[in-house]
Formats: sequence, C-alpha cells, structure tokens
Amino acid sequence: MLIGTVSGSLWATRKNENLSGLKFLLVDIEEKSPDVPTKTIVAADTEGAGFGDVVLVTTGGSARVALGSSEVPVDAAIVGIIDSVERNQ
Amino acid sequence: MLIGTVSGSLWATRKNENLSGLKFLLVDIEEKSPDVPTKTIVAADTEGAGFGDVVLVTTGGSARVALGSSEVPVDAAIVGIIDSVERNQ
Amino acid sequence: MLIGTVSGSLWATRKNENLSGLKFLLVDIEEKSPDVPTKTIVAADTEGAGFGDVVLVTTGGSARVALGSSEVPVDAAIVGIIDSVERNQ
Amino acid sequence: MLIGTVSGSLWATRKNENLSGLKFLLVDIEEKSPDVPTKTIVAADTEGAGFGDVVLVTTGGSARVALGSSEVPVDAAIVGIIDSVERNQ
Amino acid sequence: MLIGTVSGSLWATRKNENLSGLKFLLVDIEEKSPDVPTKTIVAADTEGAGFGDVVLVTTGGSARVALGSSEVPVDAAIVGIIDSVERNQ
Repeated sequence: MLIGTVSGSLWATRKNENLSGLKFLLVDIEEKSPDVPTKTIVAADTEGAGFGDVVLVTTGGSARVALGSSEVPVDAAIVGIIDSVERNQ
Repeated sequence: MLIGTVSGSLWATRKNENLSGLKFLLVDIEEKSPDVPTKTIVAADTEGAGFGDVVLVTTGGSARVALGSSEVPVDAAIVGIIDSVERNQ
Repeated sequence: MLIGTVSGSLWATRKNENLSGLKFLLVDIEEKSPDVPTKTIVAADTEGAGFGDVVLVTTGGSARVALGSSEVPVDAAIVGIIDSVERNQ
Repeated sequence: MLIGTVSGSLWATRKNENLSGLKFLLVDIEEKSPDVPTKTIVAADTEGAGFGDVVLVTTGGSARVALGSSEVPVDAAIVGIIDSVERNQ
Repeated sequence: MLIGTVSGSLWATRKNENLSGLKFLLVDIEEKSPDVPTKTIVAADTEGAGFGDVVLVTTGGSARVALGSSEVPVDAAIVGIIDSVERNQ
C-alpha cells in the first residue's frame, strides 16, 4: 500500500455506471519521504477521508476488494485514515 | 485511477478479434501536475471521449471490468469524462 | 495498452512448458514520444508482427486473455499491428 | 518480489473492516543496491518482522494470497525474513 | 516479460509456508539495454537457472501461473533460460 495526502476531488457527470455514487479523491502519493509527493492519483474513498488527511491507499485488484464488488472498475482505493506513522531513524 | 487528456487515436486493421469494434484513444497521463504529461498510454473508450477531453483512466484488470467482459484483452480504459478538478492549495 | 516497435526476438530452449510454440518478440516501448523508446520488454505475439512493426501491447492479466488461456505465464502480448496514429497537436 | 528493510510502522483507527488486526509496516525497498532505498511502501506482515529486518515483499494479488484471504484489500505483504543475500560480483 | 541476468540468491528461514522448497534468485533486470541493469528483483525459479544466466522473467499473476499454483504468494518467476537475443539495428 502507499501513503498519501488527500489534495483534491473531481467531478465527472459522464462515467461508467458502476462508478455512480462513489467519491473520488486526488491523493498525493509520498513514496520517497513525507510531504514530498512523487505523483498524484485518483482513489475511490469509502472511509470518509477529507482534504489534508494522510491516508493508506491500496492499488490494483485489491481496490475492488476494498469496495466489496468485482464489478466496480477502480484500481485505487483509500482503505484507512492514518493517525500516526512511526519511522525508525 | 489516473487523470489524463485525450491526445489522439490509433487505427489497427490486424488485431486480436476480441478488440473488434472498440475505440482506442491516446491519453497523455498527468501524474505530476495538470498539463504536464508524464507518459502516453492507449485506453479503450466506452464513454464517448474526444480530443482534448480530460478523462479518468482505470488500469489493469479493472479495465476489463469497465468493458464488462473478461474476454477483452485491455489493460486501460476511460471510465469517466472529468468536468472539474478541485485542488486544495 | 502501450505503443512500441518490434526490435528483435529471442530464443529459449529451456522454458516453462506452457510457453512452447509461442513467439516472443522484443518491443521497444514508446511512452514518451514516437521513436524515443523508454524501455524494452518481451511480448508474446499472436498477430504475426515482424521487425519494425509498430504494435499495440497489452500487459498483466490481459496478456493471458489475449492468448486465450489462463495457463500461459505471460505478462505482455502484442494484440494489434498499428496502421496509423493520429496525434492532436 | 522485492527486498527491503523495515523502517517503521503506522497506526490507523479508521480503516477498512477487513484490515482489522493486521500489522502494517513501512518497508524501504532496495531495488537498485543494498542500503539505497528507492521508495517506501506499506506492507502487511504475518511473519513477525521488526524494525531493521531485511524482508522479502510480494506485491499485487499475491499479497492477498500470502494472507490467505481474497477479502483483504492489501497489495503488498512481507512473506519472508531474509537471513542472507549472496550477490555474485 | 523482462530480460535479466541472475546475479545472486537469498536465504530466508522464516517465510510464508507456501514458499517452502522454492528457489529464489536475484535477477538484474535489463529494460534499457543489455548489461545495464535498471533494478534488481527476486524471482522464483523452476527452470534451474544459475549465476550469470540470462533469463526471461514473468511478473504479476502470471508468476503464480508459472508455478502451477494459485496458493504460492510470488509476483515474479523465471520462465525461461535465454539462449540468444537477436536485436535489429
């Protein structure tokens, strides 16, 4: 999974019917170090994340697992709101 | 999912039979920041996207989910036409 | 999917038995711009592609879908010979 | 699979219900050379890894296989604690 | 699939039980040009590859297909020993 910060949202009227009702958030992925995003992806959110939240994102088939449906065409989902990260120096 | 802009199309007479009738669009993927594409991929389109549209692209097995068939050998599909993106500064 | 140009082939006598009879081609993937490959991968070919052909490559599980068998351990397959690409300037 | 070093852990109270009880560790992935991490990911751990352990990480669908459940939305799992690596010079 | 050269091996006493008995090799992946590795991964080997062999590596779900079991949590497998590569200049 990846750690990221929610940085925005998007609106799409015309979309795949199985995406209806889902909330899509932009997440700045921080793979290198905290607060230095390497890329921005769009993740479906079922955890109620908001702007600025640090989140845990799962990708690939596990995103569909997270949404509980094999019919939803997503490849990234927010699966947790991170309270704290402990890094060993 | 990824955000991108439709930048072209392609034509292939000789192709896998399960790709017949599908529309393939070039999408400039914008993972770093808006209007700065990092790579160009080919995505199947079922949403009626056109040149210049900003689209939501899903990848991997979810592309087949988007097309509603496990028999279509695609790994990227346009699943939405994006109306607006709100980025938190 | 990715656009690439067939740049070579390989021979492997000792291989997984489910790969027997398959043709494997080297494909220079052009993700950034035409004629500037970013990496070279090996793709199974069922479309009769030859040296210099510009091809459409699908990756991941869809490669097995392309070959029509869930038993063939491939992660990339040529699914089309591209006649022309129209890029919007 | 990838080789990495456990560098931290994270805590998330609000998360997907199928992640309850799992331990999540930060792993600095070393794809280029030992001790030079290229990125940090979050992996589920069932092997009892601790800070500083060099571990074997599997990604994608095989992470769910490692956890023995297709219902757990993870895309990376620690599947071994590495005792030694022999590199041919 | 990817071309690489076997550069080492690893030993892990504590590991997922479904990995028991498997041989894991380090493979320097050569995606850019021959003899210039871009990254090192760990692949399960069932072809009897040895140090210095140039091998064909499959990734993702196809690695499990190569091992003939959906229960083995691997994401990369050596599926062939390459005898020769012909590159078109």
